[in-house]
Amino acid sequence: MQEKKKRVPSEAVAQATKEALKRRGVKVQDIAEIVYQMQLPYNDGLLIEHCIESVERVLHKREVQHSVLVGIELDELAEKKMLSEPLQSIVESDEGLFGVDETLALGAVMTYGSIALTTFGYLDKDKVGIIKKLDTKNNCVHTFLDDLVASIAASAASRIAHRMRDLEEDGETFADARALVLESSSNSNSDI
Amino acid sequence: MQEKKKRVPSEAVAQATKEALKRRGVKVQDIAEIVYQMQLPYNDGLLIEHCIESVERVLHKREVQHSVLVGIELDELAEKKMLSEPLQSIVESDEGLFGVDETLALGAVMTYGSIALTTFGYLDKDKVGIIKKLDTKNNCVHTFLDDLVASIAASAASRIAHRMRDLEEDGETFADARALVLESSSNSNSDI
Amino acid sequence: MQEKKKRVPSEAVAQATKEALKRRGVKVQDIAEIVYQMQLPYNDGLLIEHCIESVERVLHKREVQHSVLVGIELDELAEKKMLSEPLQSIVESDEGLFGVDETLALGAVMTYGSIALTTFGYLDKDKVGIIKKLDTKNNCVHTFLDDLVASIAASAASRIAHRMRDLEEDGETFADARALVLESSSNSNSDI
Amino acid sequence: MQEKKKRVPSEAVAQATKEALKRRGVKVQDIAEIVYQMQLPYNDGLLIEHCIESVERVLHKREVQHSVLVGIELDELAEKKMLSEPLQSIVESDEGLFGVDETLALGAVMTYGSIALTTFGYLDKDKVGIIKKLDTKNNCVHTFLDDLVASIAASAASRIAHRMRDLEEDGETFADARALVLESSSNSNSDI
Repeated sequence: MQEKKKRVPSEAVAQATKEALKRRGVKVQDIAEIVYQMQLPYNDGLLIEHCIESVERVLHKREVQHSVLVGIELDELAEKKMLSEPLQSIVESDEGLFGVDETLALGAVMTYGSIALTTFGYLDKDKVGIIKKLDTKNNCVHTFLDDLVASIAASAASRIAHRMRDLEEDGETFADARALVLESSSNSNSDI
Repeated sequence: MQEKKKRVPSEAVAQATKEALKRRGVKVQDIAEIVYQMQLPYNDGLLIEHCIESVERVLHKREVQHSVLVGIELDELAEKKMLSEPLQSIVESDEGLFGVDETLALGAVMTYGSIALTTFGYLDKDKVGIIKKLDTKNNCVHTFLDDLVASIAASAASRIAHRMRDLEEDGETFADARALVLESSSNSNSDI
Repeated sequence: MQEKKKRVPSEAVAQATKEALKRRGVKVQDIAEIVYQMQLPYNDGLLIEHCIESVERVLHKREVQHSVLVGIELDELAEKKMLSEPLQSIVESDEGLFGVDETLALGAVMTYGSIALTTFGYLDKDKVGIIKKLDTKNNCVHTFLDDLVASIAASAASRIAHRMRDLEEDGETFADARALVLESSSNSNSDI
Repeated sequence: MQEKKKRVPSEAVAQATKEALKRRGVKVQDIAEIVYQMQLPYNDGLLIEHCIESVERVLHKREVQHSVLVGIELDELAEKKMLSEPLQSIVESDEGLFGVDETLALGAVMTYGSIALTTFGYLDKDKVGIIKKLDTKNNCVHTFLDDLVASIAASAASRIAHRMRDLEEDGETFADARALVLESSSNSNSDI
């Protein structure tokens, strides 16, 4: 089958995703800070390290990687005026009723459940941290990127909410947990 | 076919939805006030009447009516301790990781597009007006109702955002539009 | 505000959507035929004209237009080898686990409710009519287009299912209804 | 906090989910058979054991468990004529435009990505195996259950598609993999 020959290894997709975010000025640390701010009120002992680890895990998901690659591609093409009209104008002006930016981000966030989804909606309206910076940066097109970052942050926050519950049931808090523990968790919801 | 005999007329479903909301202490006016607060910054000349009309239209949709009927039924059954365990405890305590309340509300809000969806996420976190009141009322179970109200408000707000755009393109604002105009609009997006 | 100056009129977006579909070899009639095939078993007196009208209405929705414009843009860029790697290879090979094509299409179909959504899932697996033709066409990239066509067909089919119900409640069938009637319907679910 | 006292342990929810499915006549094996039938064409060496393991994993997710508990509760209440009108009639007759049954099932299936979602749509239309049996059983109300089973099967099928890809990249197939391997997989997409 021709398709098989062309297949891109998962590792290459993961790598390209990281590079694309970096190229567009978004660091894992930036996203983790949003997660930390969102989740600290509900999680005793939560550290920024837990949030970094959670963001890293979200970035491992194929659905997330593909959304990021497509969204950043469209932002960059718009910046270079390489989209055809009227799409060029719509993306360039980050037109409020466009909706495809949110839809793309939703595809990624949905896989983390309804808590992730409502958190995404909140971040999309009440832009914080790096999301705000992206939204107000002149000369750059970040129509897709700000929604993608919000969706990654919302997904990572949802993961932490589920993990916290697992810890609580074992009589622990994040204060007892090292980032390592989170990763190797064999709890029933390890796959959310 | 047996099914046909049993069919409930749409009018009866619409009526039951209105009564259920009223019985649980939610007036159309309450929801319209949230819509007004959300949309006023973006819409010159928006009146509470436009918001009431938009909420009424949302409540006409079958998907919305069915979600409301199911959600309120579950709230009321939980209040009467008539659900089986462990569902009774989960619904009664409005457990944070439950998720079915948000899912049910999402089913309704999705039909109004991605703007409605993100607005819903925002309202779900930053509870305002009647949503806050429901959330803090003692002795009552409003696990589903607060999410349903947020979804109706978000849908109505999204309708207004789309309508405003149609008006703008005709060189008008809501100040020119009467509630009546909204309803009879034959614009291209009249069905969002 | 700068944004206002750049705004693309709705009419231009609608026009561009039609042209894009035509350029890629998809006629309204082609989509209507899928709708007809899906809905005929449940709707006495359904005509291809009703289906054409329903497809036209779906194509009037902003969410749908934007999805179509973005999806076709990505297909065409991939055909011209203008996407960056690894996205170019992923889109070109219509890689099974990509998912963004379905997500984009889902954004459009979700606005027509859960029946539209399940119908979309069915058409995505069991490709019929023009969808099959697109899927097997060599030398062309239709990674996004086949999903978009399935989503438009599913949405139009869902509209017909809701309309049929409204007619039935008035004691009528599609045999009594002319396409015109459908359009000017003032029924409670006219906006689904 | 009062809420904490009431908290239902995850294990109790998991157990209740299994019992509810069993009580309603659905065995893990029944769902696994649908998964096997859907995925065999694409997966060399796939065994029913792999499918059973995948279904078991899906049933570990909180979002899935909660949907199952709510859906079966509503089916059983309808069977006992304990829902209020008009909801009782709507659920009892498995009314085609109801939509809440699909929405509830979608909430669970969405967490497995867009492939799971389209597979769900397919199974919802083209009922196979136990889904067909449930759909045609007289005297029982399975309005929610058949959609829930379809969503679990679709989710498990999607997990297998992602796993297969991970195996392929390591130069293996399911013929090399034992069910055990699947579970302990530390691959990058182990959480899909």
